[in-house]
Amino acid sequence: MPAMRAADIIRKKRDGGELNREEIGFMVRGAAFGGAAGSGDAAVGDDQLAAWLMAVVWRGMSAAELAALTEEMLRSGEVLDFSDLPAAKVDKHSTGGVGDKTSLVVAPIVAAAGLYVPMVSGRGLGHTGGTLDKLESIPGFNVNLSVPEFRRVLAKCGCGLIGQTPEIAPADKKLYALRDITATVESPYLICASIMSKKLAEGIDALVLDVKTGDGAFMKKEEDAVYLAELMVETGQRMGKRMVALITDMEQPLGRNVGNALEVVECLEVLEGGGPADLRELCVELAAWMLVSGGRVKGLEEGKKLAVELMSDGSALEKFSEVIALQGGDPRIVDDPSRLPQALDQEDVLAQQGGVVTAIACENVGIASMLLGGGRERQDDKIDPAVGLVLHKKVGDAVEKGGRLCTVHYDSEARVDEVKRMLEQSFVVGEKAEKRPLIHRVIGENGSHAAS
Amino acid sequence: MPAMRAADIIRKKRDGGELNREEIGFMVRGAAFGGAAGSGDAAVGDDQLAAWLMAVVWRGMSAAELAALTEEMLRSGEVLDFSDLPAAKVDKHSTGGVGDKTSLVVAPIVAAAGLYVPMVSGRGLGHTGGTLDKLESIPGFNVNLSVPEFRRVLAKCGCGLIGQTPEIAPADKKLYALRDITATVESPYLICASIMSKKLAEGIDALVLDVKTGDGAFMKKEEDAVYLAELMVETGQRMGKRMVALITDMEQPLGRNVGNALEVVECLEVLEGGGPADLRELCVELAAWMLVSGGRVKGLEEGKKLAVELMSDGSALEKFSEVIALQGGDPRIVDDPSRLPQALDQEDVLAQQGGVVTAIACENVGIASMLLGGGRERQDDKIDPAVGLVLHKKVGDAVEKGGRLCTVHYDSEARVDEVKRMLEQSFVVGEKAEKRPLIHRVIGENGSHAAS
Repeated sequence: MPAMRAADIIRKKRDGGELNREEIGFMVRGAAFGGAAGSGDAAVGDDQLAAWLMAVVWRGMSAAELAALTEEMLRSGEVLDFSDLPAAKVDKHSTGGVGDKTSLVVAPIVAAAGLYVPMVSGRGLGHTGGTLDKLESIPGFNVNLSVPEFRRVLAKCGCGLIGQTPEIAPADKKLYALRDITATVESPYLICASIMSKKLAEGIDALVLDVKTGDGAFMKKEEDAVYLAELMVETGQRMGKRMVALITDMEQPLGRNVGNALEVVECLEVLEGGGPADLRELCVELAAWMLVSGGRVKGLEEGKKLAVELMSDGSALEKFSEVIALQGGDPRIVDDPSRLPQALDQEDVLAQQGGVVTAIACENVGIASMLLGGGRERQDDKIDPAVGLVLHKKVGDAVEKGGRLCTVHYDSEARVDEVKRMLEQSFVVGEKAEKRPLIHRVIGENGSHAAS
Repeated sequence: MPAMRAADIIRKKRDGGELNREEIGFMVRGAAFGGAAGSGDAAVGDDQLAAWLMAVVWRGMSAAELAALTEEMLRSGEVLDFSDLPAAKVDKHSTGGVGDKTSLVVAPIVAAAGLYVPMVSGRGLGHTGGTLDKLESIPGFNVNLSVPEFRRVLAKCGCGLIGQTPEIAPADKKLYALRDITATVESPYLICASIMSKKLAEGIDALVLDVKTGDGAFMKKEEDAVYLAELMVETGQRMGKRMVALITDMEQPLGRNVGNALEVVECLEVLEGGGPADLRELCVELAAWMLVSGGRVKGLEEGKKLAVELMSDGSALEKFSEVIALQGGDPRIVDDPSRLPQALDQEDVLAQQGGVVTAIACENVGIASMLLGGGRERQDDKIDPAVGLVLHKKVGDAVEKGGRLCTVHYDSEARVDEVKRMLEQSFVVGEKAEKRPLIHRVIGENGSHAAS
């Protein structure tokens, strides 16, 4: 058999052909190892990977191709093995949004229910926040655990919350950096393989996906969110995992707080059974699906009931306190949130007219928080954990002229006026609000069928 | 205005948008100069160029985009200026085929008619031959003239025949190398810009294109050839050049000889008014169109008449002798073709059955010549000028069982049997041949309308 050549593989995909497992493996190994180092492969250049990625954006992938891509990316690194731990391992992944802080709530709930949640998360970029940034606003909290440390924390308290280690899916790291500069990020196939290869490297039995749709989401259109969710559910199922995906609303921020420490405060409220209704509802729903797919409960209603119980009786909050302490953080923030970083100043944004809030430009709210220093414009920007904003009104709420729409928490006056103007314009006040459901659809686990 | 970013330009093309002149210039300068060196541009990586090229293959280009791409590639290097020479400058370009040797015939004819032909040609690759390789089979012939030497030859005898200098369209050189390894060669837009940027750098007033179609051509399907021809005609016209494109047949080799020195011999026959009918007809037609578009004659028929005259009266052959001498070659080959390299041995390929030749697998004939050493498998392969083959039968010719189909001229026995088998299978002998016309269509100069 003649040696494989990257150009032939690119050509095949360019012409709409279906790549086989060997061809996909050749490109992925090329990404992870430059094609060299004992693999016996010819070299694959970054230029060739880039052309291939664009051809994939163009032509898409079959279910078999996508499963092969995901598996090859997964296998480019270490796959964690927690099979010795005596209960199901289950995780949740969100495609990201504004005020989207459910990870900090659901991980402790599900761990308190006796399952294991080995959660590997990411950082925020652009208008979206990231779980790691929120956790790091807790004084001392260390998200950079080694694999053995992660295992120790997980075994001890049932959940662990870390960032991607160098051992996990190195091909994804390389391909993502390339996609970022070659406009090949926005492909449901490449997004799916990137997410699933990292998540499946956690050694989990089941995964609950929270795929956001709306103005503040990566997938603005619901059909795109559904398509991605179906791809991920099918890919996970092909690899023997129990999968559920929820399509949830990101047309306005989730909860009321946007900004890292501010979001931790809100999570503490929800863990005690309080907090904003939408955030609480989504956390209960996601936790319940994790309990279902992890086999801890028989059905969704039982899962919800258990989740609510674990919040009411204090065990979820206690679990959060426990994991904070195990990862080097200050658990006293649980009882005294004022120990979290606080911004130096606050200013209110007021309504220019009375009426009902009919829309909140969600992406702009995320950008406002970023501009205050709460998020990153570029991947290597530093962030300020204390800043952000608190929404006093959400879609459907009545507001009087001059009433408070939101409060900006800031440390530097440099961009406050700009941010206030931006927020003022983000709130649309009119006569009647149309309420969108929080959970649009459930895909998988009999919610509906995955793509075939 | 914010600085341009390659990723944004790639994204725009990926999403089917139309790039403006500045955006295309940014990418082309990035290709030619890495985006640095005084251009003030941000760097453009090869990975970004590759993704962009694939997006262009996918989305195509508008006429305005293509003109901008061609002009930016042209401007990446030196544009020759022969405006001081006292007649029109006109050239011919062929998209390449098997036995396609018309350049060596038409350049002397048109120069003998008093026009200037500043011809910059390429080398052969794969199954197709190249003008430079054919010229170099003439002992001493130097195709690597500097620009001042080229000008001197051109001014003196009316034609010059050289290879691409480093000064001409460096962006094309870079992009072509990238396209070759990223499966982005086969795009009519990229092919058009590559050809036209190099040809227009010759400082010509008019260009005649010979776009081949059929089994031995790059564009197997006629519609693809027509589309490419229309793109090139319109692009040239937008840049103020008189343009004609002929769609010509490459379903069987052109003429009877395939291989470098063998093809020179056949050119000498045609320059004297002899040689195979198809080759002679196409040379007269192409030369006539060059004379028309260069303003030397009023119409095609007058052009053909003049071309035939210049062959009959010996002035075309004399012009060929003159340019050979000026470029360091041995002009005695004109009167004594046995001074050209000759292969050590010959073997005949015989018909296994009697009948009429109904088809000749043209690409395979080209590959057969390549396998003998007459062509290149890879760009840096060395070639043997003496080897090749002579066809005794063409489509429509009757052959007896055991009669000679062609003769293989070889220097090494290594692959002769393989080549003979290949050639035997390339000739299809049946009952009745369908004859394809040699010239399928004429595009431009009132032949037909170019794409708009």
